[in-house]
Order: sequence, then structure tokens, then C-alpha cells
Amino acid sequence: MDALPDFAQILDAAARIAPYASVTPVLRSAMLDALSGAELHFKCENLQRGGAFKFRGACNAVWSLSDGQAARGVVTHSSGNHGNALALAAATRGIAAHVVVPEGAVRAKLEAIERAGAVLHRCAPTQAAREAKCAEVQRATGAELVHPYADTRVMAGQGTLALELLQQVPGLDALVTPVGGGGLASGVAIAAHGVDPALALFGAEPLGADDAARSLAQGSRVTSVVPDTVCDGLRALVGEHNLDALRTHRVEAITVSDVETVAAMRLLWSELKQVVEVSSATVLAAVLQQRQRFAGRRVGLVLTGGNVDLDALPW
Amino acid sequence: MDALPDFAQILDAAARIAPYASVTPVLRSAMLDALSGAELHFKCENLQRGGAFKFRGACNAVWSLSDGQAARGVVTHSSGNHGNALALAAATRGIAAHVVVPEGAVRAKLEAIERAGAVLHRCAPTQAAREAKCAEVQRATGAELVHPYADTRVMAGQGTLALELLQQVPGLDALVTPVGGGGLASGVAIAAHGVDPALALFGAEPLGADDAARSLAQGSRVTSVVPDTVCDGLRALVGEHNLDALRTHRVEAITVSDVETVAAMRLLWSELKQVVEVSSATVLAAVLQQRQRFAGRRVGLVLTGGNVDLDALPW
Repeated sequence: MDALPDFAQILDAAARIAPYASVTPVLRSAMLDALSGAELHFKCENLQRGGAFKFRGACNAVWSLSDGQAARGVVTHSSGNHGNALALAAATRGIAAHVVVPEGAVRAKLEAIERAGAVLHRCAPTQAAREAKCAEVQRATGAELVHPYADTRVMAGQGTLALELLQQVPGLDALVTPVGGGGLASGVAIAAHGVDPALALFGAEPLGADDAARSLAQGSRVTSVVPDTVCDGLRALVGEHNLDALRTHRVEAITVSDVETVAAMRLLWSELKQVVEVSSATVLAAVLQQRQRFAGRRVGLVLTGGNVDLDALPW
Repeated sequence: MDALPDFAQILDAAARIAPYASVTPVLRSAMLDALSGAELHFKCENLQRGGAFKFRGACNAVWSLSDGQAARGVVTHSSGNHGNALALAAATRGIAAHVVVPEGAVRAKLEAIERAGAVLHRCAPTQAAREAKCAEVQRATGAELVHPYADTRVMAGQGTLALELLQQVPGLDALVTPVGGGGLASGVAIAAHGVDPALALFGAEPLGADDAARSLAQGSRVTSVVPDTVCDGLRALVGEHNLDALRTHRVEAITVSDVETVAAMRLLWSELKQVVEVSSATVLAAVLQQRQRFAGRRVGLVLTGGNVDLDALPW
């Protein structure tokens, strides 16, 4: 299920999720334009259902199932935005969602997932334990696994935001997304180049989790990076096929330090008035770091999510 | 200059400011709808130029001047959103703005006003000193005084946001604004009833600055209230004519405690993902306090501004 989607599949996804997903606004700031010397268009997926773009992919996966598959529910392992998104998406179809969460996950996030109607399954906080528990739930229930990023349906769903943005703001010169597992970056790349093959694509990545940048530089997938960054949404290693998409679509990686990202996050809060997660701020950090490269251009920046612990801000 | 505007003047204001003001989005939240039992439509003036609705009134005042008046500039006393808004509005016409600010005002706010191109005039932090300094600037420059709320042009400008909201969301049952000096509440009341005389209007006021509520209850203007509230934007006593408008348009006051307001502010940040000032949160606090009154209704809530000190959040 992890082959790359093609442009037609992304168009299908857009039609499939339209009754459920929000068309998120694109916001601008005169101050941030002045600061960057560019024309910045922020795609506000923090205003998507569930507070993150992840709803798009999860919703497309849920509504891609046959009735027979759907009756057995869906399962994933994620204590973050994808788990929450899958729970919300399953609720739109009235089917069961099982979310495997590691012991020690943030309580507020687990409560949100439960509120959305999912059944939580706890496991030890290791990758092996998560996968084992997931397999156990699948055996017991027959639920369909929906991986956070290495899933064709999920990548196609994430790609829909690029279709939407390019319709809302025709004539962009460049598009910047964060890169974690690469589901967003790959879906967006395929969608964006389906609309406009000349669009320059950039992936913003934390210096402390720069496996995509290194993989693109050396031409093969680097798996030795041990993530060390405040950007909790971007710690996953980029998926194999996701990386292929970045390469094929000439997505250029820009690495940013956590200090740059936190400063950019503050700017998004104070100037754009948007509550965004720290991971989302990598895109503005990248544009401000590479000022000369973006100056004078019309740039789309994807603000991926707004689920923040207001009692633990990173400044 | 402090007579109430009529509906036609508000329509004129809307046309006058259209080239400069933003059409701010109206946002919704499934979670806040569920919490209130109502259908809530948030008019996001935190996304207005300068980060607050005040730009509307200031802009209407600036562009109402004759060329001769405009050449001598504008002046006001306000270290808050109105001072900043007047500076920005003056810049759209290329004229001078003088802003009288008390010693001890927040440095970040003064820097923003200067960045917008205004000349700052410092004075002692008393009402008398502010008015004296304002008069001195007027004598020296011939600048036109633009009062924050007791000014027909300002009230008309603030009223334009109701026209815009009622166009964006036809068929609202009720509209809630905060009440401070009353420039917003009165302009909105006149505009809203010009469109739909059946609309129920509410003014949210901090318990610690409840002069409008008391004035409406006892039928005459109460001036003895000494403001004591975290809502720094709502400490002004309601203006004489502003109060008349609230009375004429049967605006009902709802008083909310600072605890309720700060809790509502957190909800607006975490659920609506909007950075809003504490004063703005009074409207949601009012709706949540009077749940039975708003339940099942379509309610417009004006989020007045988003200029917040991120290092001094009230929780």
C-alpha cells in the first residue's frame, strides 16, 4: 500500500474528502512579506479538522475502503496528529478506529483521540512493540492498517492541499512544506507538479532530523540519523517511496536549526496571529534563512498543524 | 465629532476603507459549537491590518478628511491598538500621524506605532496630561484629533465589520461584541440593525469594568467605576453617545469574570487556533456563561484583536 500515488489518484482523493475536510484559508502578513522580501502565502492547515493536515490523508484512506473492509475498521500506531485524524475520519464513516499508543504519550493527545471516538491500545514505547501491537489488533479485528505516511491513500490525501492552494493562489513560484516521514512532501510534490511542472519545491527539515537532506545529497536513503529536535512532528525518517518522490520532483531540502524554527514560530504567532506547532514553523525559518533565494518570489508555505500544549511553549 | 453615525455613513465608510482594510475571515470550530450548543461564527479581526478592528475606524477617519485637513495630519492619544491603527491608516494616505503616549507604556507597542511611521509624543500617565499634550500637538501642527471611540467617523468605520460579517454569514440570530468605550458596540449595533432589525445584540463586558452594564440597568451613565480587569482593551468608560446607541438598539450587556475570560481565551487558542487578546475572549466567555440563552442559535462573535505579549500570557 506504499506505492506513490499518481496525479489522478490525488484528484480522486480531493473529490472523496470534499464532503468532510475543510477548505482551509490562505493568510498573508505585510510584516512577514517585508521581513522576507518575498510574497508569502500561508496555507493554514492548522485550521483543518483535527487541527492538522493529517485529516486529509486519513479521510482519503477511510473513504477508499470497500464497505466490507470498512466494516472491520481501521488501525494505526500514532499518538500524534495522525492518530487523531484517523479517529475523526473513521467517525465520518461511522466505523471503528483503533489507535496504538506508546506508554508515556501526552495525556491531552490521548484524550483528544478518545474524544474523537477511537479505541486506544497501549504498548511499550518501542517501534517493535508498536508494530507487534498493531499486528495483534489487525489479527483480532481484521482492521485495515493506515500508516501515517508510507501509504498511497494517505499520500494522495495530503497532496490535495496543494491542489487547493494552487487554486486559491494561482501563479505561485515556489512551495515549501516541512519534511518528516515525507507523506506530505511527496503528495504535495506530485500534486503541485501535476498542476504546474515549473513550480520550485522545497522541503524544510530540522537540522537535528536531517535524514531527507542527507539522503537527497548522497543519493541513497540514510537511516542512521537519531532525531534530536524540538520539532516532534518531524522526527520520523523519510519513507523509501516518499524519498523517491522528492528526488523525482527535484524537491530541495533546506535544513533549519531549532533556534531558527522557534523564532519563526513566534513570528507566526505574533504577526500572522496563528497558533501553529513548532514543526510548522520550519517553513518560515527556511524562507528567512535563504532570504536571497526567495526574495521577490511568490511563495506558498504549508502550516501543517496547530496542536500545541499552551502550558509548554518552546520559548 | 461624536454624534452617532447613521446607516448610510457606515455604508460610505465601507466603500471608503475597502481599498485598504482586509476582508477578515469568519472561522468556526466543531468543538466550540459542541461546547456551547450553538452555531458560532467568529469574525477574525485579529487578522485585520494592525492586528485589530481599530484599523477600520482609523482608516475611515483618515480618508474622510479633506485634502487641506489631511495635509496637517492626525493626532490621538492611545498607546494601544487605536494609536497603531491611526499610524497605519495615516500611512495609507501618506500623511503625518501624531500619537500621544503616556510614560510607562509597553515598549513593544510603542515600537510598533513608530514602525508604522507615527511621531510619538510622551506625556505623564494621567488623563489630564494626555489631553493637554494632545491639545498642544494640535495647536502646533493643526492636526485633526481622531478619538478612539467618541468620534462619528471611527464608530462608522467599526460598524463596517458588521456589514461584512452579515454578508459572509447571512441569517445570524445574534451578534456579540466586547464593550469598552463603545465605539465598536455602537457602530456594530447601527450597522447590524440597518441590515436586520430583528438581530439580537449583546455586549460582553468584564465584571471589573462593568460601567456599560450598570449604565444600561439604571438608565443613566455611570462614571464611578474604577476599572479592575485583565482586559486592558476594555478599561475605558463607555462614551455618552455610544451608550445612547446601545440603549436605542437594545444591546444587552453580559458581564464576565476575568477567570471566565481567560478560560475562553485558552479555548480560542487551542480550538480555533487563533492568537487573540484577552479582551477579545469576553465574547466567548459570555456565550459559554449564558449557554441556555444562545443554545441552538446562529451567533456571530467579534474577535477584536490579536496583539498579545507572548512572554506574558495570562494563564
